[in-house]
Amino acid sequence: MAKPKKTPRPKAQAPKGFRDYFGAEVTHRAEMLSKIAAVYQRYGFDALESSGVETVEALGKFLPDVDRPNEGVFAWQEDAEGDKPGDWLALRYDLTAPLARVYAQHRNDLPMPYRRYAMGPVWRNEKPGPGRFRQFYQCDADTVGAPSVAADAEICAMLADCLEEVGIARGDYVVRVNNRKVLNGVLEVAGLAGDDKDAERGIVLRAIDKLDRLGPEGVRALLGEGRKDDSGDFTKGAGLADAQADVVMGFMQAKRDSGAKTVARLRELVAGSDVGVQGVDELELISDLLAAGGYGPDRVEIDPSVVRGLGYYTGPVFEAELTFEIKDEKGRARNFGSVAGGGRYDDLVKRFTGQEVPATGVSIGVDRLLAALAAKGRLAGEATGPVVVTVMDRDRMADYQAMVAELRQAGIRAEVYLGNPKNFGNQMKYADKRQSPVVVIEGGDEQDRGVVQIKDMVLGAQMAQDASHDEWKERKNQYEVKRGDLVQAVRDILDRTS
Amino acid sequence: MAKPKKTPRPKAQAPKGFRDYFGAEVTHRAEMLSKIAAVYQRYGFDALESSGVETVEALGKFLPDVDRPNEGVFAWQEDAEGDKPGDWLALRYDLTAPLARVYAQHRNDLPMPYRRYAMGPVWRNEKPGPGRFRQFYQCDADTVGAPSVAADAEICAMLADCLEEVGIARGDYVVRVNNRKVLNGVLEVAGLAGDDKDAERGIVLRAIDKLDRLGPEGVRALLGEGRKDDSGDFTKGAGLADAQADVVMGFMQAKRDSGAKTVARLRELVAGSDVGVQGVDELELISDLLAAGGYGPDRVEIDPSVVRGLGYYTGPVFEAELTFEIKDEKGRARNFGSVAGGGRYDDLVKRFTGQEVPATGVSIGVDRLLAALAAKGRLAGEATGPVVVTVMDRDRMADYQAMVAELRQAGIRAEVYLGNPKNFGNQMKYADKRQSPVVVIEGGDEQDRGVVQIKDMVLGAQMAQDASHDEWKERKNQYEVKRGDLVQAVRDILDRTS
Repeated sequence: MAKPKKTPRPKAQAPKGFRDYFGAEVTHRAEMLSKIAAVYQRYGFDALESSGVETVEALGKFLPDVDRPNEGVFAWQEDAEGDKPGDWLALRYDLTAPLARVYAQHRNDLPMPYRRYAMGPVWRNEKPGPGRFRQFYQCDADTVGAPSVAADAEICAMLADCLEEVGIARGDYVVRVNNRKVLNGVLEVAGLAGDDKDAERGIVLRAIDKLDRLGPEGVRALLGEGRKDDSGDFTKGAGLADAQADVVMGFMQAKRDSGAKTVARLRELVAGSDVGVQGVDELELISDLLAAGGYGPDRVEIDPSVVRGLGYYTGPVFEAELTFEIKDEKGRARNFGSVAGGGRYDDLVKRFTGQEVPATGVSIGVDRLLAALAAKGRLAGEATGPVVVTVMDRDRMADYQAMVAELRQAGIRAEVYLGNPKNFGNQMKYADKRQSPVVVIEGGDEQDRGVVQIKDMVLGAQMAQDASHDEWKERKNQYEVKRGDLVQAVRDILDRTS
Repeated sequence: MAKPKKTPRPKAQAPKGFRDYFGAEVTHRAEMLSKIAAVYQRYGFDALESSGVETVEALGKFLPDVDRPNEGVFAWQEDAEGDKPGDWLALRYDLTAPLARVYAQHRNDLPMPYRRYAMGPVWRNEKPGPGRFRQFYQCDADTVGAPSVAADAEICAMLADCLEEVGIARGDYVVRVNNRKVLNGVLEVAGLAGDDKDAERGIVLRAIDKLDRLGPEGVRALLGEGRKDDSGDFTKGAGLADAQADVVMGFMQAKRDSGAKTVARLRELVAGSDVGVQGVDELELISDLLAAGGYGPDRVEIDPSVVRGLGYYTGPVFEAELTFEIKDEKGRARNFGSVAGGGRYDDLVKRFTGQEVPATGVSIGVDRLLAALAAKGRLAGEATGPVVVTVMDRDRMADYQAMVAELRQAGIRAEVYLGNPKNFGNQMKYADKRQSPVVVIEGGDEQDRGVVQIKDMVLGAQMAQDASHDEWKERKNQYEVKRGDLVQAVRDILDRTS
């Protein structure tokens, strides 16, 4: 065989913007996804798993008027077959575009309405930044083909159940609901409904979407003449008259101390607009349906200040917010904020079939939820480290294997040390690194006497931290047990420390 | 906004070689992966999840002497940054190459030895064929940094445990172990050890790897002058003398009716070769270690006829085979065959670090295992369909929502019909399609009387199949219960039919 050309060693490095997840990072997420899947199932949603790869055509990610994919996706062209140029393929950037493709492809075999959930990685070809990765998980549930807002109400209830299932206590979250149609009504009342008002409506929508960042005064400025930011840059506003701007501001600030009062206030604001009244009716119906299922305002509430997504969705919009405070990097208390969001969008498969099919859905930000639980100390720490059986005599490996086999049979996580056993200190260092709760030691002397040494690593660590001298003498973190009592002795320690 | 150019509708079609998984296909796999993960955990293996994307450089998939990636991977080049050409990125084609990169990158923070498991999709840029997809799951466990075959033995035991955990009964599988070093010894004894025998060794290795397909006679022909296949094509052989070929054939056919006898036979074959004797010693040690843990020849056995992977691995090689017969498409009985395989490979991270690090691991073919369980009828059928609450009066949606909320609270999968309720027949068709076990009906009359109608769909389907006329009259598959007894009545049916 010819010797290959000598090439420099490759860099052992994940690509920029991608990362590795280890141990508990993986298992905590898997547990969370499995709990959420169980709730989705209970609501009648069926699992769907499509592949990570779609045609760029199906994703709708060709740039307009150009046969080149959008930069935001990872895309490549398949090899040509004869004269036929290869298809452009891409990694999915969310789970909604594949749902549209799947539904259009399989619609004759799927139940109607179709409730489906999907969980998995998605990819974004974006500049990575701190905490911003180019692959991350999404966890979605959508109902396709149900025009009634009963479908939206059901998703709000399901979202609340999911949060409680993964460990967010009632009272620590709220699902807030708004409706794009109410905004449309408000715009109509403010005299911004006509085709000739496209530009103004665009500015108003963008201004509303900036409420979180600019606050009411900033939005108000953008509704009027415009706004000068801190750097002195001026953004031109929509040029609304005061009375018009008042209506829009009134919408965002319409929340009252009960759902009924909020609904009444919204009715005043949209009086005279059919679509606005329809939107308020929908909000009221959602609220009634939820109340009938036992989902009161302690879990789901109507809140016109939910503005995120109002530009994208066509009807009800919802967002789950965690209401407890956490400390940020600088120790300041701040609200944790949004962990899930969704709403109704009515053009899911129109690109494929020409037919308008109503759909509504939610996406849960699993990584944000995990961060929230970690901040609250509600994640079980690292997955339990294994019991480590040390190797005192490398010729007696079979005896050590028998010990770990017994422990595993009893459901206890256990391993035998597989590195070079010569240096016992290295074995103990290894056990430390593995966060091992118990170390088992059996040398020739112990074997002769039919015993093993048990070392309680948790107690050892505690004592190293805070035991007095007397305690050191009294409480032993290492002791002998009969070989036949190995499993029971280990279990006793695990039961005490778990 | 300018109107975008009218483009033809996109095709709603997964890319060639990719497919969608629905409902139970997804949940059965998720359950299997979760069971296998639990066994891996019990053996002290830690989860690792790297991203689907790696640099082509790290994957080692550039073509030799060309700066173009291997055709077997899906690859694309990142945009240039200024003068610097963009990196080539690719989808991982297995879980071992990413392990090598991760281990080389993070080795200072990882325990040594490092036991890790990984589960997830991998991608192959190959021509798709029937049952061959370009994305599929792998489910691997590897131990890095443990030179002792105790690590191999542990993985064989773990593999047996995994199979039993997912529902393959003891006796329905066997983990077969072989060793590349024994083959090397055999080649040495046959006078094929020298550097000048590269070509012959290559032909011998390829011939051995074809044992499954060609049978002993075909392999024998390829060891000698050559073989003419059914089409008349001639493949040149290694040109071994009869005595040489006898040694190689003897290796593959060395299995005896006990491990001890097989070992003895192999010792005869490799007498005089150091590496061969070392290989036989390793097989014997693996067997002893497994026996000490209770893993006898009913679960793991030494079998020199395991030839798959002998070309790739450097020491022990193992394969899990299902021993029961299934019927193929044509109704013929055939063995199900291999569902997992692995072995020792000792150059895991050398490409990155220059250091040789020993590694051994196993990959479980989850999709083949699922197919095997399905063939044995050991997969629970479809995930239970939901209880469907029908909508008799669309203004009373809140009442129906209250019913499903009660059912879900009791842990019962339930949904309200969200399509157009006008045609009741459509609602029943929907319930059928959903494989709903129970349908709940409450019209105005029932509401007035405080009752609901319960329709037992499972009994209904049974009766439609095989009930006599009398049974039709006696056994009712639809009856009335008090509204307050709804949950209990549904649960009674579910308990009976599950």
